[in-house]
Amino acid sequence: MKSVNYANVKVNGGFWKEKQDMIKNITAMAVYDRFQDTHRFEALKCQWKEGDPNMPHIFWDSDVAKWIEGAAYLLGYERNDTLEALIEEAIGDIIRNSDENGYFNSHFLVTEQDKRFQLRDCHELYCAGHLMEAAVAYYEATGKRAFLDAMCKYADYIEKVFKIEKSAAFITPGHPELELALVKLANATGEKRYMDLAKYFIDEHGKNDEEKDYIPWATWLYNQDEMLIKDRSTVDGHCVRAMYLLAAAADIAAEYGDEELKAACERCFDNAVNKRMYITGGLGSTHIGEAFTADYHLPNRTSYTETCAAIALALFAQRMLQLSVKAEYADIVEKVIYNGALSGISLDGKGFFYENPLEIDPEFNDVFVSTTQKQHYAITQRVEVFECSCCPPNILRFISSIAGMMFTSDEDTVYVHQYMNAEASFENTKLNLCTEYPVCGEICIKCVTDKKQLALRIPGWCQNFSLNCDYEIKDGYAYLAVDGETEIVLTLEMPVRAMRANRRVHDDAGRVAIVRGPIVYCAEGLDNGPDVKGIFVDTKAGFELGECEFLVPSVLAKGYRPVESDRLYLLAEEEEFEEISVKLIPYFAYANRETTEMQVWLLKK
Amino acid sequence: MKSVNYANVKVNGGFWKEKQDMIKNITAMAVYDRFQDTHRFEALKCQWKEGDPNMPHIFWDSDVAKWIEGAAYLLGYERNDTLEALIEEAIGDIIRNSDENGYFNSHFLVTEQDKRFQLRDCHELYCAGHLMEAAVAYYEATGKRAFLDAMCKYADYIEKVFKIEKSAAFITPGHPELELALVKLANATGEKRYMDLAKYFIDEHGKNDEEKDYIPWATWLYNQDEMLIKDRSTVDGHCVRAMYLLAAAADIAAEYGDEELKAACERCFDNAVNKRMYITGGLGSTHIGEAFTADYHLPNRTSYTETCAAIALALFAQRMLQLSVKAEYADIVEKVIYNGALSGISLDGKGFFYENPLEIDPEFNDVFVSTTQKQHYAITQRVEVFECSCCPPNILRFISSIAGMMFTSDEDTVYVHQYMNAEASFENTKLNLCTEYPVCGEICIKCVTDKKQLALRIPGWCQNFSLNCDYEIKDGYAYLAVDGETEIVLTLEMPVRAMRANRRVHDDAGRVAIVRGPIVYCAEGLDNGPDVKGIFVDTKAGFELGECEFLVPSVLAKGYRPVESDRLYLLAEEEEFEEISVKLIPYFAYANRETTEMQVWLLKK
Repeated sequence: MKSVNYANVKVNGGFWKEKQDMIKNITAMAVYDRFQDTHRFEALKCQWKEGDPNMPHIFWDSDVAKWIEGAAYLLGYERNDTLEALIEEAIGDIIRNSDENGYFNSHFLVTEQDKRFQLRDCHELYCAGHLMEAAVAYYEATGKRAFLDAMCKYADYIEKVFKIEKSAAFITPGHPELELALVKLANATGEKRYMDLAKYFIDEHGKNDEEKDYIPWATWLYNQDEMLIKDRSTVDGHCVRAMYLLAAAADIAAEYGDEELKAACERCFDNAVNKRMYITGGLGSTHIGEAFTADYHLPNRTSYTETCAAIALALFAQRMLQLSVKAEYADIVEKVIYNGALSGISLDGKGFFYENPLEIDPEFNDVFVSTTQKQHYAITQRVEVFECSCCPPNILRFISSIAGMMFTSDEDTVYVHQYMNAEASFENTKLNLCTEYPVCGEICIKCVTDKKQLALRIPGWCQNFSLNCDYEIKDGYAYLAVDGETEIVLTLEMPVRAMRANRRVHDDAGRVAIVRGPIVYCAEGLDNGPDVKGIFVDTKAGFELGECEFLVPSVLAKGYRPVESDRLYLLAEEEEFEEISVKLIPYFAYANRETTEMQVWLLKK
Repeated sequence: MKSVNYANVKVNGGFWKEKQDMIKNITAMAVYDRFQDTHRFEALKCQWKEGDPNMPHIFWDSDVAKWIEGAAYLLGYERNDTLEALIEEAIGDIIRNSDENGYFNSHFLVTEQDKRFQLRDCHELYCAGHLMEAAVAYYEATGKRAFLDAMCKYADYIEKVFKIEKSAAFITPGHPELELALVKLANATGEKRYMDLAKYFIDEHGKNDEEKDYIPWATWLYNQDEMLIKDRSTVDGHCVRAMYLLAAAADIAAEYGDEELKAACERCFDNAVNKRMYITGGLGSTHIGEAFTADYHLPNRTSYTETCAAIALALFAQRMLQLSVKAEYADIVEKVIYNGALSGISLDGKGFFYENPLEIDPEFNDVFVSTTQKQHYAITQRVEVFECSCCPPNILRFISSIAGMMFTSDEDTVYVHQYMNAEASFENTKLNLCTEYPVCGEICIKCVTDKKQLALRIPGWCQNFSLNCDYEIKDGYAYLAVDGETEIVLTLEMPVRAMRANRRVHDDAGRVAIVRGPIVYCAEGLDNGPDVKGIFVDTKAGFELGECEFLVPSVLAKGYRPVESDRLYLLAEEEEFEEISVKLIPYFAYANRETTEMQVWLLKK
């Protein structure tokens, strides 16, 4: 099974063309400018000295690296001298300031110089991984090797210190990321040592007896260190760490044919998406440790659901497709890209959410609290940069390379996992998808290939579909024979549906989420008046589609709201309702107008 | 308007006889023993020295004082040599160790000796207030004056330091309580100076410009110091402090005919009970500062609803009856005594809750949290003593003197506020109430009095009642003429009802609370299976009364629960329900069998 690189696929219309144009025209420079303002690029010059302001933070390199990676993907589609010059400047600083071993870290090179590879939880190898991913992206986009070579030297040094000499104070990265970067580095360079090093870190992860209590505010579980990956059945601890680790584990399971590791990945995927995932594809039930909590514990207002965690779930799910072609994996990728990840960026391309809760009740966020402690709630408006600003460049690189999630292929088959209006060219194959998806479900596919068959994902949310040819369904994919030039029309019925949660999800009891195709909807106070949490949706009255205000139609539903009262408690039998039209907008578009209430889960009449 | 002392009213059968017997036979010694174990009585000996274990805590005196007060109320009904000897021993220590000024504080006399009256938030005057209340109770129960005299000397000293010389580092008590104690002391001794001192503290409260930032973890609001009491319209900050303060303010408004202060008390009472009170009579929407938050912000699972705050609300409401005889005040007293206060003590009389939430979901309380931080949830089983053990002796004194809330009188009228099976004798009046209330609503009242009329509260929850005589309704009381010996039968219809909350209470949206008469019910997982939060109650199908397992009938309702599923999200239209019988028990009895889910607010079919 091979993936089809994003650069082989051109999104040339529809929903994702709009989003990619926004990323290219607005987001790339918006993120760059804010990182300039906040001295993140300056840090690469390694000029900081004790007493200077703006000490380079331990994770700034990763922010810059993700920006380079995202910008490189844009270059992969289209030359852009401005972007390329900015990347070259940053890369130049990195290469120039790397030490004789190839080591680069803008924090540890200028502060805490004696702490190199001593502090497991200080994101050192996490930053290294992101630099390597950036180097691979820039090399693939431009053919320029200098950055890639520098990062290979760095990887060699890490191999020496961690795997050969074992002279570091810890065994495996505290924040996984390097593992999946090494897989990319191995694939880009053909150097199997990097793949073996990735495998080494995956295999060693959890062998950390000697590191007990290495960080006082975290537990082993926080870093997924309480057991070997191959023994895992649940996803635990810090969500982004868990997902990056499992994404790399899936890579390694596929590369080495490791059935035990594959089975662990499958168990963990199942646990994540069938027990611990919000309907938006968001992960993280608590801000405390940015972490998973327990099966079915999915509070909406205090969900953490970090943008990066949703992206990381998509990266994991996409890699699971290498192990088995099952629609459930690509379904999750789709759920993430239209909901829990996309909500992380504003419609104008400049603002970002770190947390993406499923309920906002702004009036009660800043209620008086009598001490210096405060209940934690997500911010209600996107901002341009965070102190910990991992999410903005992560969205940049995710959306700019999103077409890389559309196809994979093996000897006989071209697999179509995601539907976007796009044309692709790879391995004697030309594909053209013409569709307004996800506005509607009709997809025209033209295909010229020397493969024997096409496999088209039939999304799990789709109950009725039609295909104008013979096909066979297996694991959620429609397999159909192709011979030379083929034209297919796939029609996915896409009615508005009301979904409920498992009864064990106590926070969603009595409530429904409205979905259409892959899009999860929400109701905002701005459209529906106050006290949205108390509005009932009449799911039996049918739904109407509204305007495409946010690229996809809004949904109108018949609903009821309790009439106002001055009394605090009233007889239920005296309760009066007014009939209202409930307007639902796509979840990804929430909080783009003003601060207002928001609910994904609505009471069901 | 005069109150009728508890000792003039003998509860001689029914619900409260059971509870008072439990208090007398079990609770009094159970609390004493735990306070002995935890060195609280030992502290009164003032023998502690630097380096010794068990340093007297700043609020231990208040715990002991409330125990003495509660035990004294028992003596007021019935001689008990054991109890009296224990009280005498404690009192002896207090008197012996009071200094030449009359000052007693088991903390500041042995530690931080230079800090006397320097640290406003260290409960010094709060402890003094509870000692004075205890002294009044013991004097009234036994006629012995030694303790009362000692506390008068202490009050004189406080008057000198705070009001005359103004030599303390602060103006008013950080934790109100002394104010209402001084009112009691004034009434017990006839010494108007104590009343004037209470008035002084009430009037000065909020004049604290010079004390800015006196305590780093609190705000002015926390201690109700952000404005003068007479300017208040909302209840804010620490609930117990706010209620004790307002209770004293109501006393002072009545005593001095202060219309401005009365109006403030009325506004605050309205705000408390019509915007910020749980249906159980509990107060406190957050554990952070044990505080009020905002109007209509009443989360159920994380409610603080401290037992002491419910008791304090009853103390405030009872004092409001001195200002105006309105049923809404006595209704709140009733709500508290049957629900939010009574839930604070176990059915065996030995265990106590500090927090009384309206929802318990124990499975998710101890979910993995990846750092040392943890979400705060109330404990799920009562315990015998707390480090901060204010609630156990508060319940002791509250229930042992609860009959003091039944009646008040003025020149012409005897007011009956609470209905218990009891006989009372005061001011040429003899009253006999014969009733099984709150098991049923029939109350037979025999009355011999030289007053002109009886006023019987018709509870706000009661929609239909009958009286076998002529009457006139005013402010929720039925006024009826009496002449010599009178027999009246009042019948309050007491059907099971479903209540809903104001639509602005987002946490109760779509849900109902089941009540019967003054009793609020809840559903426990033990009776109803798991996932109680997802059970629907069919409020139109009627309710049946079950056994009197907990002194009042349980309630049986027709209900529905979603059928189990392996999937996390499902189409709502495919949702299947099973019909079930929902068993509801009185809220005060929750958590008396085992740790299990509990819900007051249930989904409404």
